Amino acid sequence: MSTTSTARSAAADRCFSPEPEQRALARDLFAGVKDLPIVGPHGHVDPRMLAEDAPLPDPAQLFIVPDHYVFRMLYSQGVPMEDLGVPSRDGSAVERDPRAVWQRFAEHFHLFRGTPTGLWLTLELEQLFDIHEKPNGENAGRLYDAIQDRLRRPEYRPRALFERFGIHTLATTDAATDALEHHRAMREQGFTKVRPTFRPDAVLDLDTEGWRANVERLSAVSGVDVADYPSFLRALEQRRAFFKELGAAATDHASKTADVAPLSELEAGAVFERALSGTPGVDDARRFTAHMLFEMARMSAEDGLVMQLHVGSLRNHDAGVFRRFGLDKGADIPLATEWTRALQPVLNAYGNDPRYRLVVYTLDESSYSRELAPMAGHYPALTLGAPWWFFDSVKGMERYLDAVMETAGAYNLAGFNDDTRAFASIPARHEVWRRVTSNWLAGQTVRGLMDADDAHALARALAYEQVLRTYRLEG
Amino acid sequence: MSTTSTARSAAADRCFSPEPEQRALARDLFAGVKDLPIVGPHGHVDPRMLAEDAPLPDPAQLFIVPDHYVFRMLYSQGVPMEDLGVPSRDGSAVERDPRAVWQRFAEHFHLFRGTPTGLWLTLELEQLFDIHEKPNGENAGRLYDAIQDRLRRPEYRPRALFERFGIHTLATTDAATDALEHHRAMREQGFTKVRPTFRPDAVLDLDTEGWRANVERLSAVSGVDVADYPSFLRALEQRRAFFKELGAAATDHASKTADVAPLSELEAGAVFERALSGTPGVDDARRFTAHMLFEMARMSAEDGLVMQLHVGSLRNHDAGVFRRFGLDKGADIPLATEWTRALQPVLNAYGNDPRYRLVVYTLDESSYSRELAPMAGHYPALTLGAPWWFFDSVKGMERYLDAVMETAGAYNLAGFNDDTRAFASIPARHEVWRRVTSNWLAGQTVRGLMDADDAHALARALAYEQVLRTYRLEG
Amino acid sequence: MSTTSTARSAAADRCFSPEPEQRALARDLFAGVKDLPIVGPHGHVDPRMLAEDAPLPDPAQLFIVPDHYVFRMLYSQGVPMEDLGVPSRDGSAVERDPRAVWQRFAEHFHLFRGTPTGLWLTLELEQLFDIHEKPNGENAGRLYDAIQDRLRRPEYRPRALFERFGIHTLATTDAATDALEHHRAMREQGFTKVRPTFRPDAVLDLDTEGWRANVERLSAVSGVDVADYPSFLRALEQRRAFFKELGAAATDHASKTADVAPLSELEAGAVFERALSGTPGVDDARRFTAHMLFEMARMSAEDGLVMQLHVGSLRNHDAGVFRRFGLDKGADIPLATEWTRALQPVLNAYGNDPRYRLVVYTLDESSYSRELAPMAGHYPALTLGAPWWFFDSVKGMERYLDAVMETAGAYNLAGFNDDTRAFASIPARHEVWRRVTSNWLAGQTVRGLMDADDAHALARALAYEQVLRTYRLEG
Repeated sequence: MSTTSTARSAAADRCFSPEPEQRALARDLFAGVKDLPIVGPHGHVDPRMLAEDAPLPDPAQLFIVPDHYVFRMLYSQGVPMEDLGVPSRDGSAVERDPRAVWQRFAEHFHLFRGTPTGLWLTLELEQLFDIHEKPNGENAGRLYDAIQDRLRRPEYRPRALFERFGIHTLATTDAATDALEHHRAMREQGFTKVRPTFRPDAVLDLDTEGWRANVERLSAVSGVDVADYPSFLRALEQRRAFFKELGAAATDHASKTADVAPLSELEAGAVFERALSGTPGVDDARRFTAHMLFEMARMSAEDGLVMQLHVGSLRNHDAGVFRRFGLDKGADIPLATEWTRALQPVLNAYGNDPRYRLVVYTLDESSYSRELAPMAGHYPALTLGAPWWFFDSVKGMERYLDAVMETAGAYNLAGFNDDTRAFASIPARHEVWRRVTSNWLAGQTVRGLMDADDAHALARALAYEQVLRTYRLEG
Repeated sequence: MSTTSTARSAAADRCFSPEPEQRALARDLFAGVKDLPIVGPHGHVDPRMLAEDAPLPDPAQLFIVPDHYVFRMLYSQGVPMEDLGVPSRDGSAVERDPRAVWQRFAEHFHLFRGTPTGLWLTLELEQLFDIHEKPNGENAGRLYDAIQDRLRRPEYRPRALFERFGIHTLATTDAATDALEHHRAMREQGFTKVRPTFRPDAVLDLDTEGWRANVERLSAVSGVDVADYPSFLRALEQRRAFFKELGAAATDHASKTADVAPLSELEAGAVFERALSGTPGVDDARRFTAHMLFEMARMSAEDGLVMQLHVGSLRNHDAGVFRRFGLDKGADIPLATEWTRALQPVLNAYGNDPRYRLVVYTLDESSYSRELAPMAGHYPALTLGAPWWFFDSVKGMERYLDAVMETAGAYNLAGFNDDTRAFASIPARHEVWRRVTSNWLAGQTVRGLMDADDAHALARALAYEQVLRTYRLEG
Repeated sequence: MSTTSTARSAAADRCFSPEPEQRALARDLFAGVKDLPIVGPHGHVDPRMLAEDAPLPDPAQLFIVPDHYVFRMLYSQGVPMEDLGVPSRDGSAVERDPRAVWQRFAEHFHLFRGTPTGLWLTLELEQLFDIHEKPNGENAGRLYDAIQDRLRRPEYRPRALFERFGIHTLATTDAATDALEHHRAMREQGFTKVRPTFRPDAVLDLDTEGWRANVERLSAVSGVDVADYPSFLRALEQRRAFFKELGAAATDHASKTADVAPLSELEAGAVFERALSGTPGVDDARRFTAHMLFEMARMSAEDGLVMQLHVGSLRNHDAGVFRRFGLDKGADIPLATEWTRALQPVLNAYGNDPRYRLVVYTLDESSYSRELAPMAGHYPALTLGAPWWFFDSVKGMERYLDAVMETAGAYNLAGFNDDTRAFASIPARHEVWRRVTSNWLAGQTVRGLMDADDAHALARALAYEQVLRTYRLEG
């Protein structure tokens, strides 16, 4: 593929089978969904960026510095995080020249061969910056200038890109104690496509650094004096209502295990007291998290916020990197996850309740077909989330579809979300999902396992309709 | 595929790769096996139906009401089981009009897009009822009448269908305490293609509801007064002999874990005494089940009945559904399963014994390549069962073949069984297996990994010969 | 494929997709790597064979008797190991006639249909002996003679084959107490392509049969009187230095679990004392192994030997076979393996240390994408080993590439090693890897996920460059 024209035609069929019959149908299916609005019900874009709508800074900040998907790969091959401009916690010196960061990235771009990050970066360069060559040590400076030049133009401002991307809904992820000033600001501007998501981990997980300070902040922002367990619950309910007012459709919860199981009110109160007084018992944190997730389910059944569970990441696996650089630095490593017993209490309590919706995300692929698809194929309240994190990739999506479609059916799936902090990568990520699902459905069709009408209907469902339905955004 | 002729040609190549070379060979291989007799060594068809040979009642009873594969999918999307005619335990009102049940099913038929249940239903409609349109709200009544019209004809009686399906052997699954009157009746009619299977779970698992009543029934039917552990064993031996007389080739055992490990005779006796006297010890049930499975292995080595183990389902996960509707309502959810250590005691005792044969079924796909194929590739007595339950699907079979063929080899596999309670779906299920194996073998062949002669031999082995050999039905 | 010419053309495209576009590119990629030198950084070839360079004995010894990959499959189908000439531990009679062993093997050759062992055997027969028919009961004698005839020729001596195979480096696996006389002899002959590997399991694992005798032998060969824990460490350091002098590039460690976690020096010393005095504590062996692996990591960081971990095999699962035939008889069965928590201590201590390199091998495929690829995609010191043992197969490799390439990237993979004790199978095994990677990369390319330049670069990296780099053999 040395010539640009060949590359462009290959690009048109990206992710599609080379088999002509399947490829032709995949093109058809993709043509039917590629321009559907983007719905992003879960992600990590900074709402300030969209509220303030200031120009995006530079290529290094846009592509590398805040994105652990990118810098982890360079780090794994010996490039120090300092050299990539990743800010240190103690303020010690890191590279400040974005051009130097970009140069290092470009010199190591071959590391992304065959990775989803490489695919997204390629799509972004092509579609957003009309760059059709691979970064390398020699062209790095020229590409930097070309990107920087565009970033200065008004049509590259965040809100302009937001519209260009065709985003219908973008949800951010926000602490329970967040004042949501940027969300408020956007609403006041009449811009309601961005929604907050209630993520209370830092007040629910007793092991969080600074948990007590977080609870004090919860008191402050909620106006409920959190003095004991009942007032803690009231404060959380107040915050959920506040988030809902500002457009929240969902809550989000990260947990090492999938345990969602109630304590008695008495026990819960006692655990909370011990934590407040700084004398936690053995295993209190684990049991309290499981209990509070159950309480979150109850509140969801009551207030209608969709509950998302992201399970199975052992955060900050590399203690040295965490000490020097803090959270989200590419060293969160998955754990095997048990779902069948862990979710039984919450599904027995609320799994048949039409007011409740639970969307689950796993980092343990073996649980797709073994536990999650069978449960989603029974409980009305349970929906399977998209392939998450390391599985947000061509092969990851294909394995997900292989593993869950037959048992759960398409209508128990939540469609896609991009889960990204890299704003500019949003269209690329949705495009990959739409391409992969189109190709997968085409594969089923040319194997006589569904007809083309069904394939078209399912392509639409997976690209757009199911995510609206699951997150109750249809209205 | 809007025209019928295109749809019919697609149907001829169902499950086959679109790649012309592979497809052509898959057709060849399938042509060589599609008309081989059907051997069903494990399943849940009601023997009464075949003994009495009364006309099949109506489309709702035929396709929906007794089949949790079907109604679970509708339930997961909010259709109450009551509306589908699923009988309630307390006799409270459920839909009694089969036409109304069928109408609801037809309105939701899109939920089966891309599922194996959808594929079987489609094949049944096409092949048994000559219906080539997808059920929907509008054609529901018409299709109902068309099916009902056929069900009244003599050639749609169960035994006529049995012959038309080309069934060589069909095994049912029967409690240890079953009098097997329908099996006896069939034998007396000279009809010996249906065989009982000895499934003693309800007397081996101390946690079974009504265990003591079951043991009393065991006394009654066996004529052995079960007063203690030795007489319990004798009663079981009596029942096995009785089942064998009526044609049984195998026993079947369901268990949450794969543990098969002996207690001392003293311990086993003490546990049994405690259970009989209603004062079970902690962990007694688990240890006794493991022990009794070991005893079943011993008896199998002695009487030659093939031992089947179905492991890893957490039955009745949804307590509310179980309370209202009872067993087998689509809420049995798999568990991760450890096999390597769990089977070591029984394989060390009997795994090299030519009299013994153990066929294992798992709901944890990750154990196919990790544990089961390596063990089956060593122990002469161990054979891997077909992909079970949620894996009885096109993708499930392909993953199974991918995972086990290289390590276990084809001759340590048990071929296929349909495991169904839906009598009319038997040919469809075997057809899917034969198609998928034909296509898989064709794929290996066009990749130069075997030659066509080997592929033909393996297609036959997987469709027919291995199941006969494994279940000792060759004679 | 009845004619030889068709079979030959199929052979040329072995392992390649039948889709013409992908196949054409796979051919191109394979052509670029098929003649690269073979680097075998881990395996079980007997160094004596290469040092002495005596003629290879006979077809049975060459293909069957020492290779548990081969005889386990025959054993699983009821052929006694005695009949295959597998030596018994007590010297009781086994088949001594190699021609009779070969005859039995040939009669059962159909058991290898679709297995990697069958593929390797076929490639060896074709490429080494110009035999293009499948062994069977009738041609067995003729094939035996044809092979035997070649084995007598000088160009079939081990060292001649070594050169013909194009082997750049071949590492053996040697006990810590081994005097390495054959390695010394080869070095003295100026033949330095064979390297020893330091495998100290038998002195690190307190549960090893004869552990104390092994420690005494360690004293003897090291010249360090092992009287306590500090002298034990010194003796190990001496041996590592000795292995390094004789060309060792790596150490190798087999373990049931991936635990690598230090004890305090005090604890370690106490455990060692208890073991020496024959009064081991509960759990001492497990904890000491984990501790000593941590010490091995420290020593690796200091002396630069690459550390290999092979985890998850429950050795000698079949007690009867072990009693009669000893180690490595095809009854080693994998266990589910936890890596994330297990490796955290060693990766926190040395995972960011440029002096340290850890290469990990798993028998639990579910850990590829869940745990190993994410860790390798972060820690600079961690590299993923090739698909091991049961996964050293076409499908096994494809699943490995599918599971790890996207997350770990190609540059965190160790390339391939053959891990074989069957010397003559080395080229076949590397050929299969090179074919499968070529085809896999071609598949990515024709799906527009990389360009042909990248695919060529990665094919080279996976066939040759990464193994040199990982094992520090570039110099």
